[in-house]
Amino acid sequence: MRRTPARRPTMKDIARRAGVSESAVSFALNGRPGVSDATRERVRQVAEQLGWQPSTAARALSGEGAATVGLVLARPARTLGVESFFLQLVSGVQEVLADRRLGLLFQMAEDIDAECAVYRRWWAERRVDGLLVVDPRADDPRPALLDELGLPAVVIGAPDGDGGTHGAISTLWADDTGAMASIVGHLHALGHRRVTHVAGLPELAHTRRRMACLRTEAERRGLPDVTSVTTDYSDAQGAEATRRLLSGPQPPTAIVYDNDVMAVAGLAVAAEHGVSVPGELSIVAWDDSVLCRSTHPALTALTRDTPAFGRQAAHLLTALLAGEPPTRVQAPTPRLTTRESTSRA
Amino acid sequence: MRRTPARRPTMKDIARRAGVSESAVSFALNGRPGVSDATRERVRQVAEQLGWQPSTAARALSGEGAATVGLVLARPARTLGVESFFLQLVSGVQEVLADRRLGLLFQMAEDIDAECAVYRRWWAERRVDGLLVVDPRADDPRPALLDELGLPAVVIGAPDGDGGTHGAISTLWADDTGAMASIVGHLHALGHRRVTHVAGLPELAHTRRRMACLRTEAERRGLPDVTSVTTDYSDAQGAEATRRLLSGPQPPTAIVYDNDVMAVAGLAVAAEHGVSVPGELSIVAWDDSVLCRSTHPALTALTRDTPAFGRQAAHLLTALLAGEPPTRVQAPTPRLTTRESTSRA
Repeated sequence: MRRTPARRPTMKDIARRAGVSESAVSFALNGRPGVSDATRERVRQVAEQLGWQPSTAARALSGEGAATVGLVLARPARTLGVESFFLQLVSGVQEVLADRRLGLLFQMAEDIDAECAVYRRWWAERRVDGLLVVDPRADDPRPALLDELGLPAVVIGAPDGDGGTHGAISTLWADDTGAMASIVGHLHALGHRRVTHVAGLPELAHTRRRMACLRTEAERRGLPDVTSVTTDYSDAQGAEATRRLLSGPQPPTAIVYDNDVMAVAGLAVAAEHGVSVPGELSIVAWDDSVLCRSTHPALTALTRDTPAFGRQAAHLLTALLAGEPPTRVQAPTPRLTTRESTSRA
Repeated sequence: MRRTPARRPTMKDIARRAGVSESAVSFALNGRPGVSDATRERVRQVAEQLGWQPSTAARALSGEGAATVGLVLARPARTLGVESFFLQLVSGVQEVLADRRLGLLFQMAEDIDAECAVYRRWWAERRVDGLLVVDPRADDPRPALLDELGLPAVVIGAPDGDGGTHGAISTLWADDTGAMASIVGHLHALGHRRVTHVAGLPELAHTRRRMACLRTEAERRGLPDVTSVTTDYSDAQGAEATRRLLSGPQPPTAIVYDNDVMAVAGLAVAAEHGVSVPGELSIVAWDDSVLCRSTHPALTALTRDTPAFGRQAAHLLTALLAGEPPTRVQAPTPRLTTRESTSRA
């Protein structure tokens, strides 16, 4: 029993209802001169009554842009859907975009090359006005590509040593160094001397910054047994790294994990090995989440307001789209929330 | 040091390089008659060399559609970013869409009314060719709305008692009833008589189906102490429900949770209360995930291939967009993966 689909209201419908010519409607709705204020107001009222909206395609062809921003997430498929970070980030982004009637085109990609290919295609098809770029990395090819394509973008998390030399790219960076220093300080104060950092993907800029800070802090405090190992962020590699560490000749007394999922996996491995947490092993998770609060013992973790981070990134992008110059903004530093998984060594 | 942005190749560029007229290029690329096969082939080759792509907006205005499908996720903000289900679903959807160069417009909404408003706006702005609709519910307003708007859609998870009376709506349904029956069978065989189902949002169709099946199975097997309580799917409400149950006069010997996050939260509450799992309490989670494998003890859970579910939904939608008639397809029934959290009562 299919009904005839509703017909989208056209400028002709508005002209008929408002009792004016079609060109008057066009002038009024496009904000061009040639009609009186009274007519303009009347046309706008009728358009609203009829639920008229400019077609996104028509707007795009008239040079107003696609009213859409893009976000590509390139992570190994096996690690997707694991962290809560991205959906929380996107929920914040969308609050801001929805207010401005901007759509979000979302794409997953297998790797950085596939991500660059998506940007080229979106650009060629004129699908997006700007981009939110995540997971900046060492030798990142994306800023130069976006500059070449002339696509405004906000990079979330700063690439190493990049001071904003690219055309229309703003940066929202987080202080990973300060955050890692607060973790090392906490563990050092509790008497821990053998600390291992189970890090994420080695090619990501923030992984490198965290590892560099760990080394610096360890040297500064005279701790020789402090190291990092890298993983793909998955629970499987987090568990495997923990198994290796706990079976070694000198197991660490504290482990810092680069995300919540690996920390939870590490906690389960400790239980398997009969290693009590925090009695024999302290655990800290980057990226606090519902997971960190749900385990027993609950995990000490770095807490940040991820939806607010997303909102801030979206605001930077809408400013760029409005023609404001690129900028570089620091997000609030995550704070350490101390729970039951850390205690004296 | 901003470089001049790259210029998108135009039909004029192709004509110059191929040594033919612009109208020949237009005929060739739009698959219309009026040029020889040799010219058509040459034009296509040059277009590919130059990286030419039709503008999405131009395609949309020429009646070819927006080459975009939409997905709205309406869940309370506090529960977003918690379950791994959605990102996994989307990863499967995108595999299929990317092959066909279809974009995915993704939006979060606070509730079902906001979701319907998004559909109306997307329709008015001609942003999408079709939709993937999730979380079908009792008295769902969406099928009638999409029918009115003439937007093809695939509903993921069948609405109650809806046999496909709507225009261009296909359904991919999962057998929640069969899945719940397998859980009750497993627990009953282990000797459990007092079972509580900590369910999800009461307005969702699959929540109601699971609750109805639980009642039917309990009656059939003569189990008087089997009930459901509803929640918002959050860890907080999962933990609260568990606390109430374990503090009651007759605590259940088994709890079935409607998602992974609530099951993990329930496990932590049991540990707090000194209730051993599975010694004194068995736990089953719907929607197996990395979480269920990461806890100690690891959780018995219903396993399904969520990315495959997403691929299947996307295939149904691309079939609708290609003009095929709506259909109703059953996804494979999830199977119970037995781990350490269930044992004899």
